[in-house]
Amino acid sequence: MANTWRSIDECKAFAGLKRLAESPFDLTANAALSPERLQNFVCKGVEFDLLYACQRVTPEVLDGLQSLADECMLVDQFKQMREGAVMNRLENYPSEERQVLHTACRDIFSRDPACEAASNQAKTELEKLKVFLHELDQGLVCNASGESFDTLIHIGIGGSDLGPRSIYEALSAYKKKSRGVYFISNVDPDDSAAILERVDLLRTLVLVVSKSGTTLETLSNESMVRTALKEAGLDPARQCLAVTGESSPMDNPDRYLRSFYMYDYIGGRFSSTSMVGAVMLGFALGYDQVLEFLQGASLMDEAAGEKDLRKNLPLLLAMLGVWNHNFLAMDTVAILPYSQGLHRFPAHLQQCDMESNGKSVQRNSRQVQIKSGPIVWGEPGTNGQHAFYQLLHQGTEDVAVEFIGFRQSQRGKDLVIQGSSSQQKLIANLLAQSMALAVGKDDENPNRRFSGNRVNVILMAKRLTPKSMGALLALYEAKIVFQGFCWNVNSFDQEGVQLGKVLAGQILSAMLVKAGGESVAAAFLKAAGIK
Amino acid sequence: MANTWRSIDECKAFAGLKRLAESPFDLTANAALSPERLQNFVCKGVEFDLLYACQRVTPEVLDGLQSLADECMLVDQFKQMREGAVMNRLENYPSEERQVLHTACRDIFSRDPACEAASNQAKTELEKLKVFLHELDQGLVCNASGESFDTLIHIGIGGSDLGPRSIYEALSAYKKKSRGVYFISNVDPDDSAAILERVDLLRTLVLVVSKSGTTLETLSNESMVRTALKEAGLDPARQCLAVTGESSPMDNPDRYLRSFYMYDYIGGRFSSTSMVGAVMLGFALGYDQVLEFLQGASLMDEAAGEKDLRKNLPLLLAMLGVWNHNFLAMDTVAILPYSQGLHRFPAHLQQCDMESNGKSVQRNSRQVQIKSGPIVWGEPGTNGQHAFYQLLHQGTEDVAVEFIGFRQSQRGKDLVIQGSSSQQKLIANLLAQSMALAVGKDDENPNRRFSGNRVNVILMAKRLTPKSMGALLALYEAKIVFQGFCWNVNSFDQEGVQLGKVLAGQILSAMLVKAGGESVAAAFLKAAGIK
Repeated sequence: MANTWRSIDECKAFAGLKRLAESPFDLTANAALSPERLQNFVCKGVEFDLLYACQRVTPEVLDGLQSLADECMLVDQFKQMREGAVMNRLENYPSEERQVLHTACRDIFSRDPACEAASNQAKTELEKLKVFLHELDQGLVCNASGESFDTLIHIGIGGSDLGPRSIYEALSAYKKKSRGVYFISNVDPDDSAAILERVDLLRTLVLVVSKSGTTLETLSNESMVRTALKEAGLDPARQCLAVTGESSPMDNPDRYLRSFYMYDYIGGRFSSTSMVGAVMLGFALGYDQVLEFLQGASLMDEAAGEKDLRKNLPLLLAMLGVWNHNFLAMDTVAILPYSQGLHRFPAHLQQCDMESNGKSVQRNSRQVQIKSGPIVWGEPGTNGQHAFYQLLHQGTEDVAVEFIGFRQSQRGKDLVIQGSSSQQKLIANLLAQSMALAVGKDDENPNRRFSGNRVNVILMAKRLTPKSMGALLALYEAKIVFQGFCWNVNSFDQEGVQLGKVLAGQILSAMLVKAGGESVAAAFLKAAGIK
Repeated sequence: MANTWRSIDECKAFAGLKRLAESPFDLTANAALSPERLQNFVCKGVEFDLLYACQRVTPEVLDGLQSLADECMLVDQFKQMREGAVMNRLENYPSEERQVLHTACRDIFSRDPACEAASNQAKTELEKLKVFLHELDQGLVCNASGESFDTLIHIGIGGSDLGPRSIYEALSAYKKKSRGVYFISNVDPDDSAAILERVDLLRTLVLVVSKSGTTLETLSNESMVRTALKEAGLDPARQCLAVTGESSPMDNPDRYLRSFYMYDYIGGRFSSTSMVGAVMLGFALGYDQVLEFLQGASLMDEAAGEKDLRKNLPLLLAMLGVWNHNFLAMDTVAILPYSQGLHRFPAHLQQCDMESNGKSVQRNSRQVQIKSGPIVWGEPGTNGQHAFYQLLHQGTEDVAVEFIGFRQSQRGKDLVIQGSSSQQKLIANLLAQSMALAVGKDDENPNRRFSGNRVNVILMAKRLTPKSMGALLALYEAKIVFQGFCWNVNSFDQEGVQLGKVLAGQILSAMLVKAGGESVAAAFLKAAGIK
């Protein structure tokens, strides 16, 4: 099967794009960024529009990128993935050999889902969640004193943490007034200690998230919290919930009030729409909002099946990224949301993207010959404008920027100051940054010159809601998957984390041995006290 | 004066280092990372040791870097800066023409400070702060009902926000139990709305930080909070504090309970040890802890005056960075603290570094001929290990990593699980990642190969305390300043933020005009509703 897949550098269209990249569209030329260009270089998608006038592309470049997408069969591969093909694999060598079906978690609205078996499993878990949330609301699930739970501690790490955490932050404007969620992820004991100081354990549910049921950080943090519960005279089995694989060591009704399942076809970093994110979101926002969130994601998945690049927002975003990375040699992507709610979303995308596509081996086991995944980073604007934007505008590094903005605020509390509301200022700043980066400015004073041609896109929606958040998440998931296909890497494994784990075990063993000469360089010079 | 300063590429030692960079030290060679190397490539500094065995350097390279440092007169320039030279300037063109004296804020322990006038101003403000904090503790400053204030809202943006915020997070383990601080920075109205929902305004002080007294975001957020105070029947003049320039529009006793001053010789991103950080820290931790923090910084500044690279931690860190960036062509630096307390510190350094050195013009007004400041990003480990570390180990991008670790936790609450404490696991993971990145691993399965030679350093201290935090902050400030000298850029201005401001004003004006045809491309297509 995999034999027919190729990397973009093996495509016919590659050389032509290389030539076009020698003199890319000049955004600083007189009237280059015309009203017509601003209006025409827009892709309308689910919830979001993509404004890409400030990319160094011409219709010819877009045609070339379309050819690449076609030759690499990107949309076809995406369809196969959604239908349950074993995409998480490597030819000729042992690999995970799994399906990739995070999309099935939200493919629950159609009569004809792409992979019925997985969608049915998703529906079963959602039904369990609905019942549980109902029991919670009705007071059927409560503490020993009959009081309701108003706090949830979500314990996970990596994919079981960053996605849910960033989505919770994004949607906390919609949460039930009486409920709050805390997150513990770091094995640093100060992380759990700080949270435990803050919560009322009597009214706290603890959600432990680990697919394998064996993640060391998560189990350590769970133990810290269980110990605190016991010390407070509480029964952990009555307050702990699990999200884990069916029949994992954590799937144990003696230790957990409820278990919700995730399946091996859902990778951690793609798991936010599974129970990994849904249980926490359901607790905080209620079940209906979870469905809204899933629907936004589902609609985006559907829309990603369109073959025409210019009408397929995730595909277009992916291919513009490839153009900037592989043809215009930009090594990093900055994701800059003009929304305080999204302040942790760049960290989630950093994980999702870099863990998926930070690879050097193709699915056919050969070394990649071009660069695979870029470095992803970012912080919210307008804060960033007072910080690292200096380098974006005038530095010697060339960064591809992806802005995210909303025409309305979430909470609707605003004030007119100096003639404009804060929301108007926010949106004006976003649009101004986009233009300033693109067109630049000449000046007699060399220190006030802006070279321009600093490429960016804007993803613009009406408002950050559960539905648009679901769409945004699925948009980036699809972008990352499309790009992985472009580089012909397996975006769904993470062999790169193994060596550190093995060495950590060795150092830890050596640290715990009392006698000297235990090595791994004497337990790395006595755990770096040195000497 | 500036005529004698040069960029590293104008130094005699530059060409020799270029040659050495053609075949840098191979960390993956058999026994390359020997116990001797681990032990010898350590620089002992104030509070911190720098472990740099996992850099691709030899003694010859270090000698070359020493020559660069000498030719560029880095230590001498640093001394001049501390003594009050006008370092914030550009030759031949209008520029800010200011001294650069953030170091004076903490140069308050010596009988012979480098710049007495500035240190005296710092002492005056500290004395004011001491009195204010005393009055607060004694109940002399209190609300209309005679109750004490237990909450502070810190309003600032950029340099008036990220530094203080990251330091507060780092030291919250030491804060007074009864006190808490919130931060508002983003012009996004959801930012202030979310905080205002959480606090009890009756017992809340509001600290507004703006050197000019005219920062639009900060004034907007201040207005939102003042309005909320008034709506709650409270008198803002009784609860608002200012940190601002003397006689700025904000220096007004009719509107603020107290004003603390900062001076034009302190740049925003270098202002954390001025009143910008000290008022908030003093409220949260008490005055004595502020002094501890300043002392850590002061000791580091002193230590940065050492000419021998191998004995000067900030200088060594700076020159290793230059080696990786300008000779080994790494475009980004990842700052990865193994401490949850430091979770926002990379964002502060991202600002401080990129805003300082993301420049293309030398101080002599000529274009830079080599790359200036890199892209700085990062998140805390171990979380990152479950996220983007995949790319660090196996991706096609080469990232220079700076780990930060502590041998002891802050809060001392820990648990032994599977034979080791969380703190032991944390430190073992940090050391393992450092080694794994450096030495790599071969494997028959290409997907399990690790190329190694991925360079990193470890900054290691005993514990994250106010003093070590001060030292860490000053260490990075000095590193950034040294690197700016290497590229001969003015690290203390930020002309790159101006164009966006101007355009934002134009778009905002156009948005507010009712009639059509107002342009800036029709107010960027009606504030990106498009058409």
